[in-house]
Amino acid sequence: MPPKNEQMDLIRRGVEEVISEEELERKIERSIREQRPLIVKEGFDPTAPDIHIGHTVSLRKMRHFQDLGHTVVFLIGDFTGMIGDPTGKSETRKRLSREEVEQNARTYEEQIFKILDRDRTVIDFNSRWLSPMNLESVAHLAATSTVARMLERDDFAGRFKENRPISILEFLYPLMQGYDSVALKADVELGGTDQKFNLLVGRDIQRAYGQDPQVVITLPLLVGLDGKEKMSKSLNNYVGITDPPAEMFGKLMSIADALMMDYFEILTSIPENELARMRKGLENGTADPRETKALLARTITAEYHGEDAALAASNTFDRVFRDRETPSDIEETSLKAEGNRIWIVRLVVRAGMAKSNGEARRLVVQGGVTIDGERVTNPEEEVRVSRGTAFVLKVGKRRFKKIQVV
Amino acid sequence: MPPKNEQMDLIRRGVEEVISEEELERKIERSIREQRPLIVKEGFDPTAPDIHIGHTVSLRKMRHFQDLGHTVVFLIGDFTGMIGDPTGKSETRKRLSREEVEQNARTYEEQIFKILDRDRTVIDFNSRWLSPMNLESVAHLAATSTVARMLERDDFAGRFKENRPISILEFLYPLMQGYDSVALKADVELGGTDQKFNLLVGRDIQRAYGQDPQVVITLPLLVGLDGKEKMSKSLNNYVGITDPPAEMFGKLMSIADALMMDYFEILTSIPENELARMRKGLENGTADPRETKALLARTITAEYHGEDAALAASNTFDRVFRDRETPSDIEETSLKAEGNRIWIVRLVVRAGMAKSNGEARRLVVQGGVTIDGERVTNPEEEVRVSRGTAFVLKVGKRRFKKIQVV
Repeated sequence: MPPKNEQMDLIRRGVEEVISEEELERKIERSIREQRPLIVKEGFDPTAPDIHIGHTVSLRKMRHFQDLGHTVVFLIGDFTGMIGDPTGKSETRKRLSREEVEQNARTYEEQIFKILDRDRTVIDFNSRWLSPMNLESVAHLAATSTVARMLERDDFAGRFKENRPISILEFLYPLMQGYDSVALKADVELGGTDQKFNLLVGRDIQRAYGQDPQVVITLPLLVGLDGKEKMSKSLNNYVGITDPPAEMFGKLMSIADALMMDYFEILTSIPENELARMRKGLENGTADPRETKALLARTITAEYHGEDAALAASNTFDRVFRDRETPSDIEETSLKAEGNRIWIVRLVVRAGMAKSNGEARRLVVQGGVTIDGERVTNPEEEVRVSRGTAFVLKVGKRRFKKIQVV
Repeated sequence: MPPKNEQMDLIRRGVEEVISEEELERKIERSIREQRPLIVKEGFDPTAPDIHIGHTVSLRKMRHFQDLGHTVVFLIGDFTGMIGDPTGKSETRKRLSREEVEQNARTYEEQIFKILDRDRTVIDFNSRWLSPMNLESVAHLAATSTVARMLERDDFAGRFKENRPISILEFLYPLMQGYDSVALKADVELGGTDQKFNLLVGRDIQRAYGQDPQVVITLPLLVGLDGKEKMSKSLNNYVGITDPPAEMFGKLMSIADALMMDYFEILTSIPENELARMRKGLENGTADPRETKALLARTITAEYHGEDAALAASNTFDRVFRDRETPSDIEETSLKAEGNRIWIVRLVVRAGMAKSNGEARRLVVQGGVTIDGERVTNPEEEVRVSRGTAFVLKVGKRRFKKIQVV
């Protein structure tokens, strides 16, 4: 294991907050002394197993811990998923079957080892200790926290103030998450800044159970492609880590210039001094924003698909957007995203490039329709669209439109 | 089963509130139609199995239901008792072992059939369904109520306002009590007015579990012998239903005149028109308050010990307090109750009737000390004293003192 200061430097990089650095130093010292890896935990939603680059912020931090010799627990919160929303009111808390949980876990597994080190990763499920928990144990757990403490959480405080209902069950969720840390004897828990409250409750609960409280590390939330909201699947403003190279590259090229340097910082390992040079170049006009963004898109795409695929994606993109015509030459139109797919026929009609479904269908079948340079010939095809991104729709030999998905 | 109106009249007698009378009427109608007895539930504290006449208010109401053909569940809340206070902060929530729970249940059993009909009584324990409950079921239960609803309870509201801590566990207790009603499919739950909130939560929870909500019947709280606080063992202002006749009679004679008619109403079956006559007699001075109080004391004592024992207790009392000397002739002194017993030797010294423990001890051994006419000859005897009561201590042939226990 590397010496303490080296470990601290890597861990601190790109994080929002460490609560507390002193405790983390003590834990690292003990870990070196006893040759015992730290247990670093993060919880993941069992209902949405598609990992996007927003998740990689903390996965990359987990990887740092692994590179320092520590053990990472990728904890799937399946117990909560299997309860669902008992009131049946919430659509978002869909109740999962054991099979769905296992399927989702496999989906996670296929993705996370693009980032994590398989040998230093434990995939665990909190149903392992929460399912057998009886009311007596729940009572002990519930005795460790107070109503006032729970109402410190921003969303609870807001709802309470506005007289919107908070069920007693919702007070149990942070306790369960905290108990997960007890069950795992977690030394460190990672999460987004929006998870800070729950992570801190974990400290209280570990203390109540006679454990040394975990160090809480919060990580910045990645803003989505729209430049406004947190990146998330439900907002369709994300780049999935299994997105094909061309799609990944194209999505990343669609972000606003102002987001570029944040993405560099949070999502790449390019050293801070290089980033500083880039930032300066952009400010004084010696760097080309488009080239800089292409570097970002290539770097990230290469991480998941390799250098060759990234370069190919970059070339395709250039061919469509730069070589054949300059983007400023193309008429732009916007399309409201309703799901994350649209029927190719409807797309052509909506874009005003065919007068009827019948005409659009014929154009597709005849091979006259391409999207970002790729021909679409199946008239039943559902084309993927991502809010905040843009693509070029070509119909016939000369008619182009840039479609901005809003 | 008697007709509905007859049932309603008996049930209504002496109760504080019925929520709601319409629902109770419907339940009774269905019970008559289907020849199915109603299930009438009341919960009892597993830690304090000594039943005092304050408890009999609701036990007598249970008996009314039994006389109408219904079934009563005497529910011992042993699950809560076995959890105790997991924080270890509360002295009052002592953790009970299974053996203690069973011993306390036997003690209850020895007492309650002085009032209840053995054939229509089910003694049950809520650990039967709460012990095997797992976290998933707890989650479903916790989803049935909200934080705002819980904070409607007066004591929670007060503590919340004053920033005194309320543990999450405390929110689970009313839910557990409500779930007891689900498990028992209770038609009616009885309790003191101080239990109203919890009883109503039971209705909510039964509804959430698809059951017809129980009718809630609250009963007045009996004021203790001190005329101030609710009768309770911990305040030592009570008459136990296993108190010996003389003690029971004497304690009842010690209450303030102003309490008499309340006790008559709540604790006896003397018809309302007779009570009205007594009330009038006391007001216009045609009835003797002392005689009226003696009737109360005899009536209640007879209920637990029979007419003969009650009459004997009354005669003993008269001999000491009226025939030998009038109470006004006796010097009075007060004694601060510290437990509910005092060593006879210390009592004689404290009363100023001996100069030393040695002298007091000799007086006892020589047979010169009596309490309410009963001789105490064992110098190690611990005499029972109850706050708010008085007794006459006699030392030698002529020295009397009335000891007021405060």
